[in-house]
Amino acid sequence: MKEGINMKIHPIWNDYPEINNQLLKVDQVIQSHIRIKDKKVRAIINDVVDSGGKLLRPAYALLCSQIGPEQDEDKALAIAAALETLHIATLIHDDVIDQADRRRGKATLNNLFDNKFAIYAGDYLFSVCFSILSEYASSLSHIAYHSRSMEKILSGELEQLHSRFQPPKSVKNYLSRISGKTAQLFALSCYVGAVESKASKQERRRAWNMGHYIGMAYQITDDILDYQGDDEKMGKPVMMDAEQGIYTLPLIYAMQHDPERVSAILNQKQELSSHELDQLMVCIENAQGIEQAQSLAHRYTNKALQQLAKLPDGDYKNTLHQLTNQLLKRTT
Amino acid sequence: MKEGINMKIHPIWNDYPEINNQLLKVDQVIQSHIRIKDKKVRAIINDVVDSGGKLLRPAYALLCSQIGPEQDEDKALAIAAALETLHIATLIHDDVIDQADRRRGKATLNNLFDNKFAIYAGDYLFSVCFSILSEYASSLSHIAYHSRSMEKILSGELEQLHSRFQPPKSVKNYLSRISGKTAQLFALSCYVGAVESKASKQERRRAWNMGHYIGMAYQITDDILDYQGDDEKMGKPVMMDAEQGIYTLPLIYAMQHDPERVSAILNQKQELSSHELDQLMVCIENAQGIEQAQSLAHRYTNKALQQLAKLPDGDYKNTLHQLTNQLLKRTT
Repeated sequence: MKEGINMKIHPIWNDYPEINNQLLKVDQVIQSHIRIKDKKVRAIINDVVDSGGKLLRPAYALLCSQIGPEQDEDKALAIAAALETLHIATLIHDDVIDQADRRRGKATLNNLFDNKFAIYAGDYLFSVCFSILSEYASSLSHIAYHSRSMEKILSGELEQLHSRFQPPKSVKNYLSRISGKTAQLFALSCYVGAVESKASKQERRRAWNMGHYIGMAYQITDDILDYQGDDEKMGKPVMMDAEQGIYTLPLIYAMQHDPERVSAILNQKQELSSHELDQLMVCIENAQGIEQAQSLAHRYTNKALQQLAKLPDGDYKNTLHQLTNQLLKRTT
Repeated sequence: MKEGINMKIHPIWNDYPEINNQLLKVDQVIQSHIRIKDKKVRAIINDVVDSGGKLLRPAYALLCSQIGPEQDEDKALAIAAALETLHIATLIHDDVIDQADRRRGKATLNNLFDNKFAIYAGDYLFSVCFSILSEYASSLSHIAYHSRSMEKILSGELEQLHSRFQPPKSVKNYLSRISGKTAQLFALSCYVGAVESKASKQERRRAWNMGHYIGMAYQITDDILDYQGDDEKMGKPVMMDAEQGIYTLPLIYAMQHDPERVSAILNQKQELSSHELDQLMVCIENAQGIEQAQSLAHRYTNKALQQLAKLPDGDYKNTLHQLTNQLLKRTT
């Protein structure tokens, strides 16, 4: 296995030296599967992989691989690597689709090169994900979970795109959307970790549910931070969602509270001015949109912790507890 | 298994009723794996799948699944379906990348909807490919072949894109390019067909080589037809490759024959006029570019037939022989 290149693990793991160490190994697994002859092109893909994401999905998979009685670190690392590779591939295509210029404070591939390069780079990483799985997974059914989850995420995206002139304006629609997009991959991560450790059926189901709730809380928190964080911290422009006409939870609450005023701001043809963004923020404040969203994220976190409480005891459990609470309170 | 929808098998199979029948079943396998709730979106994806391609890759896989002693039609059909799904996914992304408006005489997804929809639709079909494989393939190593082949195709594309300001101007570069892009998937198709029938190692290798040579001949012939066919027959504008600055074999021969004149035409900043395209055609004629390319396609076909001759006897062998010769002489 080759050495990881320039890899810096996200500071979120500073307090978890063991996971930090494992995530470095996950990175090495991914890097060792980037088999591109051209050195420059390989360096570009290496860079995307090491672009400083939180590595939450592989971390949850690794933690959940301690639920069952069987421990095979190499296998757990590979599964975690496949999950992160899948995640990065979807991010690259999301950035093309959203025409995003920056992610995690760095220029996106579509910005640095062009959409063509970014599309094939995403496709390439999808294939790397399945290569890793086919090398390390313990059964075909494991790959079936991955591909079915990927299918589910993508069919959700397709349906969403097709109805994009009616963006989700109800809380229910919003939740169903993030359930397909983010929660699916968190659920899968926890589930496959549990499966590889030969956890019981009930434990696997609990791991799945826990992952789902964590993903829901995570995405809601992410969407709140779009209204709260500053540009530098988040690595992406604040209120970008609203500017792009993406209706996330705080905005949906504002819409429900004062539909006329919010619609009047959003239905303009031209880009929103900074004055209009300020007005939108006032509407969200009037509706207590942030507080309501925070409270929902809190409820999902509690549901996740309830599932966790029923899993077999072990050190991993305390870590999962601490980590899941920490995610809720994060500011970046 | 659901009924295929509006499926018309390409007329190339009129003389092969058995394959024609099997390809209808392949279509049903793919369609039954398009699990999208929204009816309109599902109909769009169904349509792309049934858009009248030649289904060569699944046909070769099915024929090669008769090389070995084991015959499992359901499995062979599924493998064939996965290969076609992978092929369609790559075509969808290729069309986004080439900004193609039409394929097979029909509007492309990126044209009908937009790039966003087309990118996710391609991703969706990648995941469907792996879902089918994980359901039917007989081993993890089978999936490894698929993902490694996909990796190889895509890393080739990435390298190609990264050097797109130096398009391949030598025959060697051109061959290496089509070897990655087209021949890899033909080789894989023949190989996995052979593997599933439990063919011997030597037979598998021969199937791989045969597929590789068939793919080379196929792509060269395709590139020749871009200079010969008329728009209606090919379902894409003639000389589109040259217009887009894609250096295929006839043009490379012309370039070698009269570099100054060809460069002068191609190095203009604006789009080529119909007069300039005519001039280019004259250069290709002077270089006997079409004839030289045809002769090379012929040599690859013969190499394929040499590999075929060494495979175990059976009806499939005559069909493969006839089909491979027919592809060389096709006019669409």
